[in-house]
Amino acid sequence: MPCYRKRDFPVAEIRRFLEPGPVVLVSSAYKGERNIMTMGWHTVMEFVPALIGCLISSGNHSYDLINRSKECVINVPTVDLARQVAGIGNCSGAEFDKFAKFKLTPQPAVEVKAPLIAECYANLECKLADASLRDKYNFFIFEVVKAHAPRAPKYPKTIHYRGDGMFMVAGPSLNLRRLFRPGML
Amino acid sequence: MPCYRKRDFPVAEIRRFLEPGPVVLVSSAYKGERNIMTMGWHTVMEFVPALIGCLISSGNHSYDLINRSKECVINVPTVDLARQVAGIGNCSGAEFDKFAKFKLTPQPAVEVKAPLIAECYANLECKLADASLRDKYNFFIFEVVKAHAPRAPKYPKTIHYRGDGMFMVAGPSLNLRRLFRPGML
Repeated sequence: MPCYRKRDFPVAEIRRFLEPGPVVLVSSAYKGERNIMTMGWHTVMEFVPALIGCLISSGNHSYDLINRSKECVINVPTVDLARQVAGIGNCSGAEFDKFAKFKLTPQPAVEVKAPLIAECYANLECKLADASLRDKYNFFIFEVVKAHAPRAPKYPKTIHYRGDGMFMVAGPSLNLRRLFRPGML
Repeated sequence: MPCYRKRDFPVAEIRRFLEPGPVVLVSSAYKGERNIMTMGWHTVMEFVPALIGCLISSGNHSYDLINRSKECVINVPTVDLARQVAGIGNCSGAEFDKFAKFKLTPQPAVEVKAPLIAECYANLECKLADASLRDKYNFFIFEVVKAHAPRAPKYPKTIHYRGDGMFMVAGPSLNLRRLFRPGML
């Protein structure tokens, strides 16, 4: 299991973790209950405030916890956790505690009651910002209010879902800074 | 430049291309004008109808063309086109024709007037489905009405933006099908 030494990370810069499109683990809590779900459908929506739009199906046990608490944590796992990510996405938290079942460590967050997942590379504490498309599309817009990430590795080996049980593991970095205008960096 | 032999691809399965989170090229046309923009903020929202939510900043020249035509094509480039992707994201189509400047080939689409970009791996013809969050967040929801993709390679080397001029190139595939419940595949 990976173990990261994390520090506060500027919320305006969390696109670094989410824009490449990794599958993430969403943790939530409400009145003594807690859960984890696997989520692949999300997008950055704004730098400041740091907004994330995402799909949380109403069929998920997490939907109720998030809907009621209006909070969650978006945790970014790496390839070391691939089996847990797939396992979490293929069972329901209505039946058991996923932290215990998948041997993941809940840690207290600062701004929300949902727990961080210690083994994930980055943890983004989120508060519900806009639910206007929730009933029509299961689409939630969250504001990231606090972020935790390690200094190293700078470019984590995240996993990206293609559907049909197939994942893509993050590959090499490509530096194209020389092609960018200064204002675009 | 890559050259793909494409065929019709089922629109209900286009998550395969977009869920891993690649940066895409959005082509548009309106009244004799056409343009291309680079887009990194998008998410799958539904299988059927095939919905994609994405951010198109009102400061972009493409915003007007898409807003007026209510159509676009989402083109999925591979690493072969990385320099063009960065270049297209760092200049404005108000000044010149990006197809000519970046030596990309426009091809007629079937369901929309916006052109496909021939050199891209996949082309998704889109019609505007919901603009209710456009004015507040620049968020557009499109329905993919027709898709074109080649049989091979099955797993293209897409590029994924981390910000700050740095990209991640799609790496190895990881098959975790054995961990999936039949209904989840």
